[in-house]
Amino acid sequence: GDVVLGKQKAISCAACHGQQGLSTVPDAPNLAGQPELYVVTQLKAYRSGTRRHEVMNLMAKPLTDDDIDNLAAWFGSLKIQVVQ
Amino acid sequence: GDVVLGKQKAISCAACHGQQGLSTVPDAPNLAGQPELYVVTQLKAYRSGTRRHEVMNLMAKPLTDDDIDNLAAWFGSLKIQVVQ
Repeated sequence: GDVVLGKQKAISCAACHGQQGLSTVPDAPNLAGQPELYVVTQLKAYRSGTRRHEVMNLMAKPLTDDDIDNLAAWFGSLKIQVVQ
Repeated sequence: GDVVLGKQKAISCAACHGQQGLSTVPDAPNLAGQPELYVVTQLKAYRSGTRRHEVMNLMAKPLTDDDIDNLAAWFGSLKIQVVQ
């Protein structure tokens, strides 16, 4: 996916998942550094409804496969480390 | 939850989610630093089957509510930062 396009697309995700993919709300996960395949799989599951979540089903509905690949590339590019 | 008990319980998660909650396989998420409520919600969804995943439904089946709270506390204790 394209990281720059993904970053652009991710603006609407920042409310819950943060500017840098670190969650801002207790019931939303961090997305920074998540493996791309995992992000693609989950976004497609939310888009198709096989994974249920009121907000995420709505958010994912309009996404194209390219959008999803770009978002996965963007979040995957935000490398993380455990600082404990 | 209890971080020490959670760390103990998480030994069986390390194969895919890593010793420090950083994923070792492309289709498994990082769990380090995830918000506790999110982890609790997902483990209960895997345990009840409202969220479908062959491996995770099996892994979550035997977990008690305390196990789940302890796992969430353990993974939540592994603070992360984006290093980009």
